[in-house]
Amino acid sequence: MTAIPNKALSPTLKLAMDLIRRPSVTPDDAGCQPLMMSRLAPLGFAEENLRFGTTDNLWARKGSEEPVLAFAGHTDVVPTGPEKNWAIPPFEAIIKDGMLHGRGAADMKGSLAAFVTACERFVGKHPNHRGSIALLITSDEEGPAGDGTVKVIETLEARNEKIDWCLIGEPSSTVNVGDTIKNGRRGSLHGYLTVHGVQGHVAYPHLAENPIHKVAPALHDLAQEFWDNGNDYFPPTTFQITKVEAGTGSNMIPGECLVHFNFRYCTESTAESLEERVVAVLGRHSLNYDLQWHLSGRPFLTDKGALVSASTAAIARVCGRETELSTSGGTSDGRFIAPTGAQVVELGPINATIHKVNECVSADDLDTLSQIYEEILVELLA
Amino acid sequence: MTAIPNKALSPTLKLAMDLIRRPSVTPDDAGCQPLMMSRLAPLGFAEENLRFGTTDNLWARKGSEEPVLAFAGHTDVVPTGPEKNWAIPPFEAIIKDGMLHGRGAADMKGSLAAFVTACERFVGKHPNHRGSIALLITSDEEGPAGDGTVKVIETLEARNEKIDWCLIGEPSSTVNVGDTIKNGRRGSLHGYLTVHGVQGHVAYPHLAENPIHKVAPALHDLAQEFWDNGNDYFPPTTFQITKVEAGTGSNMIPGECLVHFNFRYCTESTAESLEERVVAVLGRHSLNYDLQWHLSGRPFLTDKGALVSASTAAIARVCGRETELSTSGGTSDGRFIAPTGAQVVELGPINATIHKVNECVSADDLDTLSQIYEEILVELLA
Ligand SMILES: [Zn+2]
Ligand SMILES: [Zn+2]
Repeated sequence: MTAIPNKALSPTLKLAMDLIRRPSVTPDDAGCQPLMMSRLAPLGFAEENLRFGTTDNLWARKGSEEPVLAFAGHTDVVPTGPEKNWAIPPFEAIIKDGMLHGRGAADMKGSLAAFVTACERFVGKHPNHRGSIALLITSDEEGPAGDGTVKVIETLEARNEKIDWCLIGEPSSTVNVGDTIKNGRRGSLHGYLTVHGVQGHVAYPHLAENPIHKVAPALHDLAQEFWDNGNDYFPPTTFQITKVEAGTGSNMIPGECLVHFNFRYCTESTAESLEERVVAVLGRHSLNYDLQWHLSGRPFLTDKGALVSASTAAIARVCGRETELSTSGGTSDGRFIAPTGAQVVELGPINATIHKVNECVSADDLDTLSQIYEEILVELLA
Repeated sequence: MTAIPNKALSPTLKLAMDLIRRPSVTPDDAGCQPLMMSRLAPLGFAEENLRFGTTDNLWARKGSEEPVLAFAGHTDVVPTGPEKNWAIPPFEAIIKDGMLHGRGAADMKGSLAAFVTACERFVGKHPNHRGSIALLITSDEEGPAGDGTVKVIETLEARNEKIDWCLIGEPSSTVNVGDTIKNGRRGSLHGYLTVHGVQGHVAYPHLAENPIHKVAPALHDLAQEFWDNGNDYFPPTTFQITKVEAGTGSNMIPGECLVHFNFRYCTESTAESLEERVVAVLGRHSLNYDLQWHLSGRPFLTDKGALVSASTAAIARVCGRETELSTSGGTSDGRFIAPTGAQVVELGPINATIHKVNECVSADDLDTLSQIYEEILVELLA
């Protein structure tokens, strides 16, 4: 264990630790946004608190000019599970062997701290920068996300306030910080299928109709289906069944079978085309069913442009590293921001431990990340 | 509503009502066995209470000679579900429009009352009958049944006490009382399958292995499989999946999928042959799985003989009706008694409402049933 005296810690690490010590399990902000604002206000950021339901959102903006570069992220973290499974308690924020440990260290309180310290240095050096800097921070990205970024975007759109460039601090890196940035995401489409049969006793199957027997070949067909080939920007669309549930395991033939499934889909398919194709497959199996859909997010893509160029240039300058553009991985709040026309890029630390026990992030990487963010500010607004 | 003055009720109906008013939800006897014993003791029955765990069992025997005719049954009833769903409260035992209503009216407190009153009349007329009359009554037939009839049989076997003929009062009739008796039952074999995959996030399916996708075609094959043709005594073997469970429906690919299934099988298959054939089907799908088996009961058959003849003759004499021999339907405690070598027949009232809300039985049918039981006693022991 490498003990680091507190005075030796960088401003980014100190702030990241203060944020981790606030146990902001989704959708509780636990005072993280006020802590960030206490650092942004002296720089000249105007504060706007947008609370919807139980979700706290912060829109902080310095300047009234265009273009607008917004750093976006979330203060909420996923639950820890039993704390006894953690080598270091998840909200203590301890650095051990060069790694900052804690729930949210990588996803994404380290990035939030790096946003703030990058702004501090940039504004210190460029008090009269062009355009505006903004932070769009929510406390509900890990939860249902219905009262988070989507509502802030609606508020901005309603008053015709635009974001030109949005840098989301999600942990995009895989092996080395900055090795990957996300310039788009696949769409996510959920299906909720209920297949109806006729309940009965296993001793009298001729009086019943087993919905599990009926749906099994349809599920096999769906799992085998070829959806598309992907394209230059996106991997092929994938289909996964996430839940099946029927029966109690007694001597009863269940009356219905629930199936939940999810598409991660690329721009070669649409939500509408996938829905039609699922219905066609089900139609081949003469099922009696109900089917509900939930479109979690359409796919989006930020092609090469000022934001991607500034990001790759900043990474090259700070790390001497080429970066890879990727559209893989889960959804992010980019799905809400991209439809406004903003360029959207995700750039953050290594994502190896996110949502797991013993989440941690390299302490040095957070300092590097803060430098990258500062260089992006320089590229775009100096 | 036909109001019947209480004094007009037959002894069988009065006793059935007293039994129904004891809410003996499995495995609670709720005083039913002592009530029955209070009627049997004066006839010369010796009482033996065999309590195992939370289950009360009664072995009552009159006489020490062979042959032994045992009436077998259970005092426990299945739960009522919400009582508000019942037109008549389930433990009030009210006769309306000729039907005795209540949980257990048909399954099988009516039969228990008919046992007792048949014995009363028979012993009154034939005080020096040959052989022995016994009652084997449990309070756990509707539950797991592990401490019920099976334990009483073990006790009898340990001291070499034999039952020659066993008449079980389970509701065997379909349209008219006595139209069907069961002279055997199919076997029941449970399978508990766990298919292992690799848990992961839907956004990264290449890092996971979806056990639902893997098992779906295997379940289809099992549901489509031809097991056997049945024979003169039994319908063909049937296979039913009673439960599937996997995943939580979030964005996770589940790590495993549970499947429960049940065979009702005839004497053309064996538990061993069915187990082998399931393993062969699963083997065609390269699954990583665990499979547990529980043999609930092997099939049994009581061919034509003294007990079947006495039963059909008694039904003909009392009802003027031909009876049909059947081996269909669910398991019963006969599975525990038949392996001792006893002849086993099930003969009871109409089973249309058993285990349902508003369970009821024809009041007249219970009197008829008591007469049939008395005639069987006459045939075999007078
Ligand atoms: Zn995140
Ligand atoms: Zn029963």
